[in-house]
Amino acid sequence: MGLSARNNLTGTVKSLKKDEIMAEIVVELGDGQTVTSTITRASADRLDLAEGDEVSAVIKASEVMIDKD
Amino acid sequence: MGLSARNNLTGTVKSLKKDEIMAEIVVELGDGQTVTSTITRASADRLDLAEGDEVSAVIKASEVMIDKD
Amino acid sequence: MGLSARNNLTGTVKSLKKDEIMAEIVVELGDGQTVTSTITRASADRLDLAEGDEVSAVIKASEVMIDKD
Amino acid sequence: MGLSARNNLTGTVKSLKKDEIMAEIVVELGDGQTVTSTITRASADRLDLAEGDEVSAVIKASEVMIDKD
Amino acid sequence: MGLSARNNLTGTVKSLKKDEIMAEIVVELGDGQTVTSTITRASADRLDLAEGDEVSAVIKASEVMIDKD
Amino acid sequence: MGLSARNNLTGTVKSLKKDEIMAEIVVELGDGQTVTSTITRASADRLDLAEGDEVSAVIKASEVMIDKD
Repeated sequence: MGLSARNNLTGTVKSLKKDEIMAEIVVELGDGQTVTSTITRASADRLDLAEGDEVSAVIKASEVMIDKD
Repeated sequence: MGLSARNNLTGTVKSLKKDEIMAEIVVELGDGQTVTSTITRASADRLDLAEGDEVSAVIKASEVMIDKD
Repeated sequence: MGLSARNNLTGTVKSLKKDEIMAEIVVELGDGQTVTSTITRASADRLDLAEGDEVSAVIKASEVMIDKD
Repeated sequence: MGLSARNNLTGTVKSLKKDEIMAEIVVELGDGQTVTSTITRASADRLDLAEGDEVSAVIKASEVMIDKD
Repeated sequence: MGLSARNNLTGTVKSLKKDEIMAEIVVELGDGQTVTSTITRASADRLDLAEGDEVSAVIKASEVMIDKD
Repeated sequence: MGLSARNNLTGTVKSLKKDEIMAEIVVELGDGQTVTSTITRASADRLDLAEGDEVSAVIKASEVMIDKD
């Protein structure tokens, strides 16, 4: 059935940066907006992440804030 | 200059549900994908959130995971 | 390849409680320790969670603190 | 009485890696499963963490997702 | 030695609200600023939280954003 | 109207450290307590953060735990 996380935004890896412990991934969504993620470098290596990969940005609903002007 | 959070996805409130302490908000992005957020009911009331509102879903990069098939 | 989240603890649903928006799930691991999770009720319903289900508790490494006496 | 966090998994530090700002700690639980944590290097130094230390992995329930096949 | 979490803000419980699964606690710091926390109702009951209690608000550094005008 | 996040603690940047991907910021509040934050280095650069800056530490209520002796 899958994971409880409510948010699963599909897109393409636009850029990827790694240091010793962390990695930063920018994912471009279908409407041109981007989502930035920091994960461990070990996870980025395990998933063999590279620019151009089709991925999902997965986010638990409790981590999402709302901003209204 | 604004907030350090890297992710700011603009969209429209599609649905809104409240109980005593929590509120659940579904935001529809430009490409039809949705983002679900849980915040306190007090925040939803303070922002006077309602269906149709233009809002942003704000997410710290450290909360975003990556899924790759 | 799967999800970047580093932590995937397999166990059995020991108890499950739902209110209007939230659900609380207690998972018992193989060594008898338990992990408690709060997710949205909508996710608990979508996964059709019930006592006795084999599940994993999934946790991003950035959410784990260390306590040392 | 202690901390509100619901999850307190006791284990042993199996490995420890540090860079300038972050540290990554792998804790082995009693049933052989592991929990990975990223904390600041300053916290790892303050706790004087080392391989073999008996520690707990502490996790707020709101950070735990559920995965069901 | 204690918990890796970097933030430990001492104050007094100013208000407390509970529903079936969640509890919302407002803590007043020494300088009059307040910190709001949502935890499970089960944790609030276990800690026997009440208005006037001296408590600490504990926050992992990775959860803190910075806002600059 | 602003952001749903319940916690907005105003203070002054006391110290700032950056590595390749991450930055660690210590904010001193009015009552002398400090709040430590880790954000991406890219965000610290975009906000042009420096010691002495007046900033707010912004925290979602779901990320705040309570400790009671």
